[in-house]
Order: sequence, then structure tokens, then C-alpha cells
Amino acid sequence: MKDVKVSEPTVERLVKYHRLLERVTGEGRKVISSKEIGEMLSYKASQVRKDLSYFGEIGKRGVGYHVDRLYRHLGAVLSSPRLWSIGLAGVGRLGEAILGYKGFRSEKFQIKALFDVDPAKIGTKILGTPCYSIDDAPRVLREQNIEVVIISVPSGAAQYVADRVTASGNVKGILNFSPVSLALPDDVLLYSVDISVELEKLLFYLKHRGQ
Amino acid sequence: MKDVKVSEPTVERLVKYHRLLERVTGEGRKVISSKEIGEMLSYKASQVRKDLSYFGEIGKRGVGYHVDRLYRHLGAVLSSPRLWSIGLAGVGRLGEAILGYKGFRSEKFQIKALFDVDPAKIGTKILGTPCYSIDDAPRVLREQNIEVVIISVPSGAAQYVADRVTASGNVKGILNFSPVSLALPDDVLLYSVDISVELEKLLFYLKHRGQ
Repeated sequence: MKDVKVSEPTVERLVKYHRLLERVTGEGRKVISSKEIGEMLSYKASQVRKDLSYFGEIGKRGVGYHVDRLYRHLGAVLSSPRLWSIGLAGVGRLGEAILGYKGFRSEKFQIKALFDVDPAKIGTKILGTPCYSIDDAPRVLREQNIEVVIISVPSGAAQYVADRVTASGNVKGILNFSPVSLALPDDVLLYSVDISVELEKLLFYLKHRGQ
Repeated sequence: MKDVKVSEPTVERLVKYHRLLERVTGEGRKVISSKEIGEMLSYKASQVRKDLSYFGEIGKRGVGYHVDRLYRHLGAVLSSPRLWSIGLAGVGRLGEAILGYKGFRSEKFQIKALFDVDPAKIGTKILGTPCYSIDDAPRVLREQNIEVVIISVPSGAAQYVADRVTASGNVKGILNFSPVSLALPDDVLLYSVDISVELEKLLFYLKHRGQ
């Protein structure tokens, strides 16, 4: 995470504050306190105040934050200068789940191209998005100016797919859902999500809570 | 996270050290340094040393850690006293992806029962696991002594499902993949995973890296 001062857990909290405020705005609320935000997201109120003040928002003692203003402010911090075009490699169960996931519908990004090895999928549209052969990825990613790719292929295929995808030369970031480490060019940002790690964490806490 | 001293990011790092060591053991390596571990997982070497020494493992200067010993040691820290039985509510695309996810095959836990509202699924086996009506969840969870449930239903149904599941009285932890906040009894541990938050984080860093 070179050149970036804000830590990863902080960014995650910002994203969650922003989503919470979006919901609360929809419910017509005008003000909210750091304590309320903290309770809804399981953070300490002091953490919420520290995060928000770092980004220039100071709540009023005894009143809290103006919901609308805070929502717009965090939106600006998190905003993208443009709509990101996203590619998704691997349209198996997990890939289809990601494609249909409600949270992946956003004004910030759009899944524009799918890649797979299955001849039955290549050349078709899946949930409205065209699917190409993974071997055409370098060309398609360049032509469509896709800079971010989600990888959701079986572990054994993930490095091959990562190599094909980065061969395009214009991919800047990869979100990897395959439970395997990937070797990537230095200028490509990698985020890996292993959904089973969360279950392991939950079980760890359940085990230790009983002691 | 009452009663637990180890922070969530620390647990996540422990899980990742353990998986890395499992792989490295399989490759036949005997020793590994904190620097190497750090490089493979994108952590600082000093962080790795701090984490491991907290759990009683001190590497030898200029040599590193014995892979096999460290692997067994972390395994003991992370181990479960028994096999956890897991339930999974919502066998749509995401639920099926979780069910088939390689990382969810473990000696620590096993998905024993599925729950859905679709009459075409109820009463069948999906990828080898029996599927029940969500309305039977309280009874099935008690009978099979299932203490952890993964929720992967559409947002609008998540709270209803959480209520049915916790009505069993013996569920201690919930792993929620639905992008919505849940209200749960105080004694139930909740972990929420919003897979699109990871994409937002990646885009945030890509945006700020360019500045």
C-alpha cells in the first residue's frame, strides 16, 4: 500500500459509515451521534469521532452530525473521478454470485466483460454481460479500457488467469476471490478476499469466548 | 467482541500465517524468516515477529522459524476443540458458491444443513447436503446441534431468516453475507462480510495512488 496514508481498516470503516448514512438518509433522519453510529456498526464512539475528524468533520457536542452533510462529505472522500469498468474472470458459481450481488450495483463501477474457458459460455451474455474467452482478455481489456479485474476461478487456474489479465498492460488492480496467493507485476494493486477466513475468525472468537 | 483480547486484524493475520505455513510445509521447506512470511503476505516483518512472539514463538536471528513447529503451534492456537456443525440459509447463487468453495472444506467445520424457501429445493440434497424449509430451522438446528449459521439470502429476507435461526436458542454465531445490518440477541456473535466493500477499498486506493 505504498503512497497511501490511510490504513485499510480506516478505509473499510469509511465505506461502512457511508453506507449507514445512505440508509439513515433514506429513513429521513436529520442528525446522528458518534455513539449511535458506533452502536449500529459495532465500533467505539471515540473511533468514529477520530475517523470523521481526520476527514474534517466535527460533530456538535450533544447534537451530533448532520446526516445529509456527513453523507455528502464522505461520498466526496470515497468518490471516484469516473465510472470504473470492471472485468470478471471465472463465471462459475462464485462469479455468478458476484455478478448478481446487490452490493455490486453502484454508480462507481460496472462489470463490463466476463471471461471464462467454457465454450458454452463464451460468446453469450450472462445476466446481461458479454462473456469472452480468457485468451482474448488482453485485447478485450485494452479495447474496453478495463482497469480492474475480479478473479473468481478455481485455485489451480488463478495464476494463469492473473497472467493473462495483466498481460493487457492496462489493468491497475485485481480483486482476487480465489483462495491462493498470486504473483503480480509491481504496479498492479492486489486485494484478496478469502471468504472462509471470516468463518475461521468467527469460530476463533466463539472458542475463546467460552473460556 | 467482549471477553476477547486478541484483535480482529490479529486473528486474520494468524489465520493467514497458518495457511501460508500449510502450503510451505507441503513444499518441503524447513525454515522461514519473518521477512519471507511478510513478503508473501504483504505484512511488515516486524509485524510478523510481534504477532508470533505474542503467541510464544521466537524465531532464531539469522535463521528464522522452524516451519513445521510454527505450523503446529499456530494450528493449536487456532484449533477448535471439536468439529463445528454449520448451517447455511439461502441456497441461491451465493449460497451455492459458498457450499462449493474450496476454502470451506476444513477439518474444523462442516456444513450439515441447508435452509431455503424454494419448494423445489426443500427436501432435496444440494452438493450432498440436505435442504430444509427455513421455517423448520429452529427444530433442525436444535436436533443437529448446529451452533453457527451462514446467512446468504437476499437483503430483504435476512432479518427474518436471522430471527428464525436464533429462535432455535442454540445458535452462538452468525456469518452474514447479506449486505444489510442485522439485529440479533446479545449472546449471538455476528460477523458480516460485504464482498463489495473489498472492491470499494481497492478503488479508493487506486484513486489515491494516482494523486
